Amino acid sequence: MSDHIVQSFDVELRALTAHILQLGVLAEQQLTDAVWSLRRGNEQMAKEVAEREERLNLLAARIESDAVSMIARRQPLAIDLRHVMAAIRISSNLERVGDLAYNIAKRSMAMSATAIPAELAEPMQRMAELTLLQLKSARESFATMDMHAAYRVWTEDAVIDAMHTILFKDIVQCMADERAAAFDLAHLLFVVKNIERVGDHATNIAEDVVYMVSGALPLGKRPKMDESTLPRGHA
Amino acid sequence: MSDHIVQSFDVELRALTAHILQLGVLAEQQLTDAVWSLRRGNEQMAKEVAEREERLNLLAARIESDAVSMIARRQPLAIDLRHVMAAIRISSNLERVGDLAYNIAKRSMAMSATAIPAELAEPMQRMAELTLLQLKSARESFATMDMHAAYRVWTEDAVIDAMHTILFKDIVQCMADERAAAFDLAHLLFVVKNIERVGDHATNIAEDVVYMVSGALPLGKRPKMDESTLPRGHA
Repeated sequence: MSDHIVQSFDVELRALTAHILQLGVLAEQQLTDAVWSLRRGNEQMAKEVAEREERLNLLAARIESDAVSMIARRQPLAIDLRHVMAAIRISSNLERVGDLAYNIAKRSMAMSATAIPAELAEPMQRMAELTLLQLKSARESFATMDMHAAYRVWTEDAVIDAMHTILFKDIVQCMADERAAAFDLAHLLFVVKNIERVGDHATNIAEDVVYMVSGALPLGKRPKMDESTLPRGHA
Repeated sequence: MSDHIVQSFDVELRALTAHILQLGVLAEQQLTDAVWSLRRGNEQMAKEVAEREERLNLLAARIESDAVSMIARRQPLAIDLRHVMAAIRISSNLERVGDLAYNIAKRSMAMSATAIPAELAEPMQRMAELTLLQLKSARESFATMDMHAAYRVWTEDAVIDAMHTILFKDIVQCMADERAAAFDLAHLLFVVKNIERVGDHATNIAEDVVYMVSGALPLGKRPKMDESTLPRGHA
């Protein structure tokens, strides 16, 4: 009987994990398509991102509800409880990634197709690609419970932050020089901020994996820098 | 014995509620002080906001941990389970309000003291005051389980969104006219966006209260508009 209960818990946990991975793939697709729609001025693709947003939210809500039900019915302890709690947290982070991708898609629809100067579009694309890699690595570290891979995600977020700081300065400079429509560039400021925040969510997921596997949070303060730490009056 | 268990659950629930209300008051204080530090260029106050951030995060983490433990030990059903789940969600929303206030304080430190033209500072202050009122009403609706008060918070968020849309346009216009340093105005764009997002969290809390009391989400789609829905090429 005890074996039966243990096995059922594992079966439920595997289903929960499968749903998390599915949610991760969906969130990555949303970000990819949102950034693509922005670069190509592809309004149809932006609309598809908006349409898929609800599916992502429903999947995240189902994961949360399944996880809470598992805690109430199974009263898991130690690693098992950490696993279920990690599922809740990771699902919430992925849902927010979906929100950010949706917001990028909405801004892409509000911007003119030729809005982004090439010297901004290319570094934005590179930043988005690195962020997607981080998101994928965080998902894989959860799937394989690989704490070392999770640590790598955690430390590499500093690169995304640095890319964002440079882009923030360059976009504001473009605004000051009137090299593109001020409104389009204001939207672009938020787009790159959203990409930077996706990086933060990838890092949160990596932290959840480290905590799930080891029972302790990563040591040391995460290297963190953003454009709000620029020196006063910088322009 | 059964009475004893029921009573203990109620005692635990009251303690959980007290912690949520404490967290709410703390989050409101953080937002008040962050906006004040920005308006007055008061770096000392901004530093105090930064220092209190950790206390807020610890309290939110404690609420989540207590709530999960209650679910595992008590296996609450129906309204009781909804109450504990609402506590987890509301705590997470208040923690994010704290993050947003902290971000405003950081930006306030990065901006010059005289950075904000009066025609932007005053509507920003009004928007922050309304947002604080919403946050307070949401907290009180949770304390009194007043579904109608929660509904009012839910519908009035549209006013904050409208104020934000106007401010967003006015700040971008100031950037185009070079009426203040472009960097300071870029930070200000994010400050007002952060205030608008605090309003969203107040609305989420109100939704949690409605769900907790009634078991159903508010009917109808929430009136939602932000600056990303402005017509294309608007400047």
